[in-house]
Amino acid sequence: MAASSPPGAILGVDLGATTLAGGLVDGAGTVRNSHSVPTDRLSRGEGVLQNLLAVVAGLLDDARKMGGPILGVGVGAPGVIEVDTGTIGEDIQNIPEFRGLALGRILRERTGLPVVVDNDVNALTLGEWMFGQARGLRHVAMIAVGTSIGGGLILNGALVRGVSGYGGEIGHTTVDLDGPDCFCGSRGCIKVYASGADIARQARSLLRADRTSILLELVGGDPNRIDAPQVFAAAAQGDPMAVTVVARAAQALGAGVGNLINLYNPELIVLGGSVMEAGEILMEPVVRWARFYAFEAAFDRTRIVRSTLTKESGVQGAAALFLYEQGRERLT
Amino acid sequence: MAASSPPGAILGVDLGATTLAGGLVDGAGTVRNSHSVPTDRLSRGEGVLQNLLAVVAGLLDDARKMGGPILGVGVGAPGVIEVDTGTIGEDIQNIPEFRGLALGRILRERTGLPVVVDNDVNALTLGEWMFGQARGLRHVAMIAVGTSIGGGLILNGALVRGVSGYGGEIGHTTVDLDGPDCFCGSRGCIKVYASGADIARQARSLLRADRTSILLELVGGDPNRIDAPQVFAAAAQGDPMAVTVVARAAQALGAGVGNLINLYNPELIVLGGSVMEAGEILMEPVVRWARFYAFEAAFDRTRIVRSTLTKESGVQGAAALFLYEQGRERLT
Repeated sequence: MAASSPPGAILGVDLGATTLAGGLVDGAGTVRNSHSVPTDRLSRGEGVLQNLLAVVAGLLDDARKMGGPILGVGVGAPGVIEVDTGTIGEDIQNIPEFRGLALGRILRERTGLPVVVDNDVNALTLGEWMFGQARGLRHVAMIAVGTSIGGGLILNGALVRGVSGYGGEIGHTTVDLDGPDCFCGSRGCIKVYASGADIARQARSLLRADRTSILLELVGGDPNRIDAPQVFAAAAQGDPMAVTVVARAAQALGAGVGNLINLYNPELIVLGGSVMEAGEILMEPVVRWARFYAFEAAFDRTRIVRSTLTKESGVQGAAALFLYEQGRERLT
Repeated sequence: MAASSPPGAILGVDLGATTLAGGLVDGAGTVRNSHSVPTDRLSRGEGVLQNLLAVVAGLLDDARKMGGPILGVGVGAPGVIEVDTGTIGEDIQNIPEFRGLALGRILRERTGLPVVVDNDVNALTLGEWMFGQARGLRHVAMIAVGTSIGGGLILNGALVRGVSGYGGEIGHTTVDLDGPDCFCGSRGCIKVYASGADIARQARSLLRADRTSILLELVGGDPNRIDAPQVFAAAAQGDPMAVTVVARAAQALGAGVGNLINLYNPELIVLGGSVMEAGEILMEPVVRWARFYAFEAAFDRTRIVRSTLTKESGVQGAAALFLYEQGRERLT
């Protein structure tokens, strides 16, 4: 642990749709030890909460064995969170069992520790800011491109949550007035072009009209098996249909990045999430389009980087979330 | 002057493309007296600066006669400003004579007073926040729809300028990936649909194909005389071509408002500028589209209002800018 770090560890929990990870993190961001289980190892419903409580209990045991205090618990969860109470919002898509759950209160009662719950991408953004590539900067945006698209904003050195926690929903900003419908009720959102699910959906839809694409071979003739990595693989081989889908995703995402540059003039924009693991085949045109859509002088001041997140980053981010809130309380 | 206001006045200057206004403003935002002159009353070039210095000198004389100290000078100017030095940026469109001018330094030398220079819409936004409808709120966005479209953002109780002053360029965010070209180098910006100049431009362009519009009568048969108020007047009479232009402007502006709601979840969005003087014929569909493009739960927490700005608001905003910076300095 760095000399300047507060003594003791933070218990960080990353509540994902498929994996629930928890770990003990020191004040320098190092994950000391961690556990993860499938989110729904038990039956869905009460099972998800039971799994979460079991992971937390296991880590508290570990902490007792290791000695040293636990300062508190940070949890990153999908959807919009009411941070003051730690209650999961109504718009949670992937873990419907948790809709409206007062997770913060439950964890406070179980652990006797201070608990902070917030959106998982807000937590990741704080992780990048406290321990990662965004360290020491004042204006940072993060876009997490996975099954869906999430975002986090740090402006003037503070996380932007807004009045009820919807701040930073970059994936659901419109870049095409009359574009395709989105589940959110709007249309032309960045998400409908560039999320992993939508990249696969667009490829499936095009395949119905064009059965010659090599994508069809990659999935053994079954369009339902198409996923985003296969679309990128086919595009890398020059498959025209896959190239079209990737080009459109990059343009939409690049326009979104350009919009963030003109709105915030940030020092850094971090692109993360499983879809960005496609690498330069996506990153290169995204940056090119961002340059096109943004003011040149503003673009020139913004670094655009790929996240270097690992599977521990969610846990680290959840710990950063706790440290951030603790710091805010000290200020007020 | 309110009992809680600091004693003394602030000298506020609003540097517009056509009018240069200055006034003495007390700490409660009341404009005590003001002067305004055409920006280019003298020849352009040095003349603009001479006018500005004459307005400032006149107000300092007034202040001397009235007694009481002048705390400092605030200036709202078009374009992107380097606030630390008070230097006008390269992207200024309307007063090219001021490109790169170290206005802050010049005014400090002439007056011996502390001087703050920033973008005029940032100043208006601070004016709404300190003295107007946004008083006491933490998250506010302003969109000024005039000849062009400017914007200002206050998030977590701080103005968002970004790393080099481009923060808040809402008018130049893209809502249509493949939309019409904009002077900024991008395309599909909100500005190309909804600014006063672009509303007139679109109407002129449609008139070339359809000579039956009543707009042609309104301008005595000369399409070059079309301006935005005439397009709204024709739309109010049900002219199909004018209705089309207004509908598209409202959709683009509504999408922009929706994007701000999903990005910031603000308590208030203020729509101002000369184009908004069209009233409900524009405001009503803008709010309807914002509801369409934004998350319902976030939209429900955001009030969207028309600015109640008067011709003194620019001067008031410039004074608010000075007070805001003075407050920040006290904090650091």
